[in-house]
Amino acid sequence: MPNPTAAILIIGDEILTGRTREGNAYFLAGELAKAGIDLKQIRVIGDDHATIVAAVRELSAAHDQLFTSGGIGPTHDDITADAVADAFGRMIDVREDAREILARHYAARGVEFTESRLRMARIPEGARLIDNPVSGAPGFSVENCHVMAGVPNIFQAMVAGLLPHLAGGAPLQSRNWQLMVAEAAIAEELRALAVAHPGVSLGSYPFVTDGQYGTNLVARSTDPVALEAAFAALKTHFPEGQ
Amino acid sequence: MPNPTAAILIIGDEILTGRTREGNAYFLAGELAKAGIDLKQIRVIGDDHATIVAAVRELSAAHDQLFTSGGIGPTHDDITADAVADAFGRMIDVREDAREILARHYAARGVEFTESRLRMARIPEGARLIDNPVSGAPGFSVENCHVMAGVPNIFQAMVAGLLPHLAGGAPLQSRNWQLMVAEAAIAEELRALAVAHPGVSLGSYPFVTDGQYGTNLVARSTDPVALEAAFAALKTHFPEGQ
Repeated sequence: MPNPTAAILIIGDEILTGRTREGNAYFLAGELAKAGIDLKQIRVIGDDHATIVAAVRELSAAHDQLFTSGGIGPTHDDITADAVADAFGRMIDVREDAREILARHYAARGVEFTESRLRMARIPEGARLIDNPVSGAPGFSVENCHVMAGVPNIFQAMVAGLLPHLAGGAPLQSRNWQLMVAEAAIAEELRALAVAHPGVSLGSYPFVTDGQYGTNLVARSTDPVALEAAFAALKTHFPEGQ
Repeated sequence: MPNPTAAILIIGDEILTGRTREGNAYFLAGELAKAGIDLKQIRVIGDDHATIVAAVRELSAAHDQLFTSGGIGPTHDDITADAVADAFGRMIDVREDAREILARHYAARGVEFTESRLRMARIPEGARLIDNPVSGAPGFSVENCHVMAGVPNIFQAMVAGLLPHLAGGAPLQSRNWQLMVAEAAIAEELRALAVAHPGVSLGSYPFVTDGQYGTNLVARSTDPVALEAAFAALKTHFPEGQ
């Protein structure tokens, strides 16, 4: 059975203007590979209601899971929750269980529970909450769409709570073989190896270090036996690697 | 007149599997903001012909400019040039001017011009070449789609050669105001300021440092006068910032 598929949707003008270097997709990509969920697309869009609604509809329909990051805070530019509700045709309002979580969190810390903070208890109807052990305000899942915070440590904590509940597949494993030769010098042999090992993806990634050309060869597969066979062939064909 | 729009398409399994942290989109996002080109979407997809063709068609039709990164090297997993040719219905073959550039580059360095390296002279018909001062092999532009390498220093050199030839608009400028208060504590005031300054985008970005909550407020606009007025209002309303 093929592994389940996924997409990641990053929401935030600060990425598109070059102010912030995105890191949540990089983190989640690694976690999904370990969980055996095939990431097919990462998309970054701005804080625009219609754009978010359209992207959520398209990506959730085309993949088994959709993960979003960003736009669920207390300020006027946090519009993700309302857009996701719209995308799935659900009502959205302050929900009592989310309000209680926030009330407890703020009471324990002597922080005032303001009108702005109450905004973070707005949850689409029928959604399941995602625990936020860092700052209280929960994420949520609507159907196959998992809505999480953009702040990296909160995002990572939410992923840790969410992923074990999702159906995974065979983890993608990889083996790395580094050669200090230019990519083009081994392209023909590598192509032949790729043909001979159809169950394994063979990627080649050139680099330059101290003016020397090198190539990282990466074999990837969800089938450990096929992976080791391909890796053994790599080592045999390119014994100068490491 | 509104600024021209753009999308970035990053092509490579190594991003989706979490092996590599993408950085080219981050670099180009900053350059586009300075050039007055509005970046509307970043998309990352894998090394799959049909997926690349569909994404190039969709994103080039929906934006004034499309920039791609990755998949134009000499190995079997470098399939971007053929996919872009397909997306625009063009033939692709080794082109004499590209072949000459590579021949000169390798001759000057005493490097053998192999069959694999010749693959990098495959250029869709009618394309304009993009100079590669680092490793010779050119990028190319087909209509509004600019195809560049994935290796970061080559990508950056190609962008530097390409961008001055594209029509830009008013550069996006930004001013930053940092407060050591939680985002929620200022959300209402910020919302009012956003309403009062419609030509300026006011973003708020929470952070935690040494256990202290803080918020970066970022005012962005292509109109310098409106930007300074909004920034002055930020400073007046939140005099404790810096």
